[in-house]
Amino acid sequence: MMSEESAISALLEMRADACRVKDVDRLIALYAPDVVYYDVVPPMRFAGLDEARRNFVRWFGEYDGPIALETRELVVAAGVDVAFAHMLHLDSGKRRNGLQTSIWVRSSLGFRRVGGRWLITHEHVSVPIDPRTLQAWLPPEG
Amino acid sequence: MMSEESAISALLEMRADACRVKDVDRLIALYAPDVVYYDVVPPMRFAGLDEARRNFVRWFGEYDGPIALETRELVVAAGVDVAFAHMLHLDSGKRRNGLQTSIWVRSSLGFRRVGGRWLITHEHVSVPIDPRTLQAWLPPEG
Repeated sequence: MMSEESAISALLEMRADACRVKDVDRLIALYAPDVVYYDVVPPMRFAGLDEARRNFVRWFGEYDGPIALETRELVVAAGVDVAFAHMLHLDSGKRRNGLQTSIWVRSSLGFRRVGGRWLITHEHVSVPIDPRTLQAWLPPEG
Repeated sequence: MMSEESAISALLEMRADACRVKDVDRLIALYAPDVVYYDVVPPMRFAGLDEARRNFVRWFGEYDGPIALETRELVVAAGVDVAFAHMLHLDSGKRRNGLQTSIWVRSSLGFRRVGGRWLITHEHVSVPIDPRTLQAWLPPEG
């Protein structure tokens, strides 16, 4: 299924590009109407395009200028109509408070092909939690 | 693909049962050799059966007795050889310190069918983080 894996990789590139320039319309067009989104921030899940879109707008608003998204350790598994992918992302940019920040997150996505077109039906983004402090854990080195 | 979705649901039941009784051999048998596991705790990811197994043993060791796993909002998407699933889990049990705890987590899984048998090749478990405190966020009500 190499061609379907290429299609998923291309979709992931479009997703990263849309995030980079904070184009919420281009980004949300990649998601299915019944998307279920587990994000780094509360609540437990966002359901549907309206909730996902509002959450993207919130995220974009935290940055002053573009958001750089670097992808590492990408794995794509694609069948005929169902696919998933997982990767590490380094999100970098200038925050509204002027500070330049970089954060590593883990990202998992589920896809379905509907009417010949792949759409993201599930996304899960998180950072680990230090069990001693219950605080977000950041890896020692990018 | 209803029969494949049933097969995935059955596998998820076996996974929950193995966790409940903390049977690491039965649990690890459901995972692929090249599994990539993003857990609630650091590091960013566990790769391969040895790392995944050690992490399950660590998790089981935190509880005195069985771990109850309640599943909510399960969604399964299964193709011929690739599938994924996502759900909320309520993990409950008596901790080593004697305290009874319950925690909601988000869980996403990827599966591949290899030699006719479905195996988990990816798992991602997390809790959201409160952006103000950077601490684990717990939902107000189960």
